[in-house]
Amino acid sequence: MTGKFIVLEGGDAVGKSTQGKEMAARLRERGYEVVETFEPGATHFGARLRELLMGDVPMSPLAEALLMAADRADHVATVIKPALIRGAWVVSDRFLPSSLVYQGVGRALGLETVSEINKSAVDGLVPDLVVVLDLDSQDARGRRDLDSDRFETAGDEFAAQVVVAYRDLAPSMGWKIVDASGSPEEVSSSLWGLVVESLSP
Amino acid sequence: MTGKFIVLEGGDAVGKSTQGKEMAARLRERGYEVVETFEPGATHFGARLRELLMGDVPMSPLAEALLMAADRADHVATVIKPALIRGAWVVSDRFLPSSLVYQGVGRALGLETVSEINKSAVDGLVPDLVVVLDLDSQDARGRRDLDSDRFETAGDEFAAQVVVAYRDLAPSMGWKIVDASGSPEEVSSSLWGLVVESLSP
Repeated sequence: MTGKFIVLEGGDAVGKSTQGKEMAARLRERGYEVVETFEPGATHFGARLRELLMGDVPMSPLAEALLMAADRADHVATVIKPALIRGAWVVSDRFLPSSLVYQGVGRALGLETVSEINKSAVDGLVPDLVVVLDLDSQDARGRRDLDSDRFETAGDEFAAQVVVAYRDLAPSMGWKIVDASGSPEEVSSSLWGLVVESLSP
Repeated sequence: MTGKFIVLEGGDAVGKSTQGKEMAARLRERGYEVVETFEPGATHFGARLRELLMGDVPMSPLAEALLMAADRADHVATVIKPALIRGAWVVSDRFLPSSLVYQGVGRALGLETVSEINKSAVDGLVPDLVVVLDLDSQDARGRRDLDSDRFETAGDEFAAQVVVAYRDLAPSMGWKIVDASGSPEEVSSSLWGLVVESLSP
């Protein structure tokens, strides 16, 4: 595969979507084809799963993790791999790290179980760069009021746990952490520095 | 756990549902509480997944296997295990063997991948008895015209492959095979013989 695969991670409302757009624009200015995507729900199949994941049907953490993996399997096979193979860069708002943090740590399924469930779903695909946008959950909550979506309904304690889990796992997983407390321009500048340093676009 | 867990397997339209009812009736006559259940779709969550699995949204074999596992995780946690723990016998129309045969062999995902995906879903639960109702797919097709459901839409070649896969896997998996070509009374008699021999109800 000739393209590069960049994943933006972090809690809700830390600015992943805005930063993904900005990063994609900078890459396009340099002449790359860029596919901007997200999890869960980027494919037709995934959108149906997302409805279920967001609906009011109760499900266990394990069932939730298996649905996320099903969404990911379809996303990898029909969006991410085809793009990388034709040489495009892919910028995804969330990927496997979200499952490790949210279901593995947050829902206490364990990293081993989440990894096992996702092994076939990711089909050997490893991101070239994973960046965690790091922001205290109280600050993210302030932003959420301005820009909320249906996923952002978990409680404050859970949100705080997610922030800590990203920080804890980052060193051993090779995820880069970027301080997301500054202005969007400051954050995108830091992010771009990381992309240049890691991937030499 | 004090109850026993019996699984009826086989291709479509071999009589699993009829035989499950008959077996449950015989067990109830002996004073047992019996829970009759099935996969996929026995729970509220599973029913929503079943809609997706049967709908016209295309999905990969891997995504299909992950949804089946999500259904199974919910089924085990909310129906099967609670019943067994309180001492009931559980008779299920399909369980993990269906995933091994349909997705593992039929859809060529491989037994290892299907086992890996289902490891957490079954949560250590192993059936006390798995019986495969064995019927050539042409004979099953004849029955299907009388008693069809929405799952029974796969092609003839696939149906024949499923029959062979059950026969091939049975010895190493410890599944018992019962000839399902006779009358319902003959089949239920053979089945009951197996239950008595294996589980001494």
